[in-house]
Amino acid sequence: METIKYNEKGLIPAILQNAKSNEVLMLAWMNAEAYKKTLETREAHFWSRSRQELWHKGETSGNRMYVKEIRVDCDADTLLLFVDPAGPACHTGSRSCFSLTLE
Amino acid sequence: METIKYNEKGLIPAILQNAKSNEVLMLAWMNAEAYKKTLETREAHFWSRSRQELWHKGETSGNRMYVKEIRVDCDADTLLLFVDPAGPACHTGSRSCFSLTLE
Repeated sequence: METIKYNEKGLIPAILQNAKSNEVLMLAWMNAEAYKKTLETREAHFWSRSRQELWHKGETSGNRMYVKEIRVDCDADTLLLFVDPAGPACHTGSRSCFSLTLE
Repeated sequence: METIKYNEKGLIPAILQNAKSNEVLMLAWMNAEAYKKTLETREAHFWSRSRQELWHKGETSGNRMYVKEIRVDCDADTLLLFVDPAGPACHTGSRSCFSLTLE
């Protein structure tokens, strides 16, 4: 846990990738508590920047993200989580939050 | 371009994913200029937060990232770029920056 570098707000971005299909599902932010909860429960927890509270992904919707593996990048300031999603990652009902193609 | 939301520092995180293998390669940050350059050249450009300058990925190493598609997420504050990498994404020589497994 000491290897992770949080930013000046105490947050680190976490990319969620489907462990089976390799589809990138979403990016959200973790603080130390969310990271700890994720490790303990093996379900993705984040820090909601809009609501300013701990966010257990799928707690309401049921679309939990079961964490299979956690990686960190070379400068230790981004996480990559391989997950088994219980349902769509996106609040719009899309499988991935990255549905809109710009180019 | 107006659909993209930059943060309070004028930056947006961009995830790079190998367009063929679907491997997640790295996450870096773009400002408006880097995004514009990326669109114009079809090669990934970022804003280097450590050097505080425009960063044409692979300009020195040759490991350019040829951009095949750009997506944005549902709240328009994260980009996902599908790329064809000319070489390793990581400065360590690894194909991906996410080589270290924590859990």
